[in-house]
Amino acid sequence: MQGVLSEALAVAFRLALPPTLTVAGRTDAGVHARGQVAHVDVPSGMWASAASVAMRRLNRVLPADVRVRAISVAPAGFDARFSALWRRYSYRVCDGAVCADPLRRHDTLWHRLPVDPQLMNQAAAACLGTHDFAAFCRRRLGASTVRELQRLDWHRDETGVVVAAVIADAFCHNMVRALVGALLAVGDGRKPASWPAAMLAAAVRDPAVTVAPPHPLCLEQVGYPADEDLKARASLTRRGRSAG
Amino acid sequence: MQGVLSEALAVAFRLALPPTLTVAGRTDAGVHARGQVAHVDVPSGMWASAASVAMRRLNRVLPADVRVRAISVAPAGFDARFSALWRRYSYRVCDGAVCADPLRRHDTLWHRLPVDPQLMNQAAAACLGTHDFAAFCRRRLGASTVRELQRLDWHRDETGVVVAAVIADAFCHNMVRALVGALLAVGDGRKPASWPAAMLAAAVRDPAVTVAPPHPLCLEQVGYPADEDLKARASLTRRGRSAG
Repeated sequence: MQGVLSEALAVAFRLALPPTLTVAGRTDAGVHARGQVAHVDVPSGMWASAASVAMRRLNRVLPADVRVRAISVAPAGFDARFSALWRRYSYRVCDGAVCADPLRRHDTLWHRLPVDPQLMNQAAAACLGTHDFAAFCRRRLGASTVRELQRLDWHRDETGVVVAAVIADAFCHNMVRALVGALLAVGDGRKPASWPAAMLAAAVRDPAVTVAPPHPLCLEQVGYPADEDLKARASLTRRGRSAG
Repeated sequence: MQGVLSEALAVAFRLALPPTLTVAGRTDAGVHARGQVAHVDVPSGMWASAASVAMRRLNRVLPADVRVRAISVAPAGFDARFSALWRRYSYRVCDGAVCADPLRRHDTLWHRLPVDPQLMNQAAAACLGTHDFAAFCRRRLGASTVRELQRLDWHRDETGVVVAAVIADAFCHNMVRALVGALLAVGDGRKPASWPAAMLAAAVRDPAVTVAPPHPLCLEQVGYPADEDLKARASLTRRGRSAG
């Protein structure tokens, strides 16, 4: 997405080089990002036309699977990635014939066993808070796997699809998909509800965790502080990550 | 869809030949059918197992873009096509950056101009009732183009997408898409609200009508009478169509 958007900017605005784009959520391959946020430094005067005109120019150049939905001048100190307070993801699971909608196969998991959202919520609640999520993360050298999981719950929507809402300050690689994989094993009865929290406490990657497929996962929203706190938040996040 | 399902039946139940399937809505190529209904005569004993087991067997064989959501023994006199009282279709149009969701590009039209659903509703209301829809149909020799348009209205949903609900006793080839094409021209200001009804009254195919693309169109539901009226309804429909 980052590369595609950067190329489109160069084409739409006739730049010599694709500008460097910073995105809020560097999602795993195959993950959707309906609520992605990005910032980019552009030559002054490039947005001389109204933002809506610039947006139409960009969308004409972009492939159908990427759409720019809003453009604005960033407030001072804004960094799409490091100023973010939280990211919210959704994960869609269809566990029976009733909710099987072929039109949503591109963003819905077809799970063979029926799942119980209440059991999954019970298991998920025990994982909330600030923890070392090493059990659910692909480890990268020198990077912290401590994250604050602020929300993780499931509900069956009006079409029968079981949808997760997951919020954390940030996510490490594979983290949402590994959590979802563990919770599905609880939801369909393969594992007890206490299992995900026990793994979390062990803080080592457990081969019993199946990383759920990427296509039902979507970055829905990114939260930022008030304008005057953007810069401070960015400095704080940068320090926290490198300290890891 | 018809062919795919028929082949899947043969594979799942080890039949020598794919059985002949009758579907309620023979949709144009590229049109979705989330609410399709079909009937098929099968050797007695083929559904010896529970319907849910048969359904799982079928869904395992079917490609991801076709799903069987329910199976039951048809009441006497049932004909998926000729017993139907009405068909309901939906059509999804996104007319601005706000509602542009790349995840729905497979079933949503990206319309370059903003549309006014109220204007489209005004134009659509004038087309309701029993008419010769020749202006909006691809003509087939010896087939009637008289249909009863029972409902055609648009609303902007919670995501900003403009969605049509269209109900008729039956539709001829291209009919929904030609009506949608005419109404979009009204909605975005290219044509006056009186235009679709004027064309309808002329009852000849008008080259000014653009047939809207198929992918945002979906057969959502098929209505049938009470069991005791299924047979009578089927005879009535068969007579009506051949009389055309």
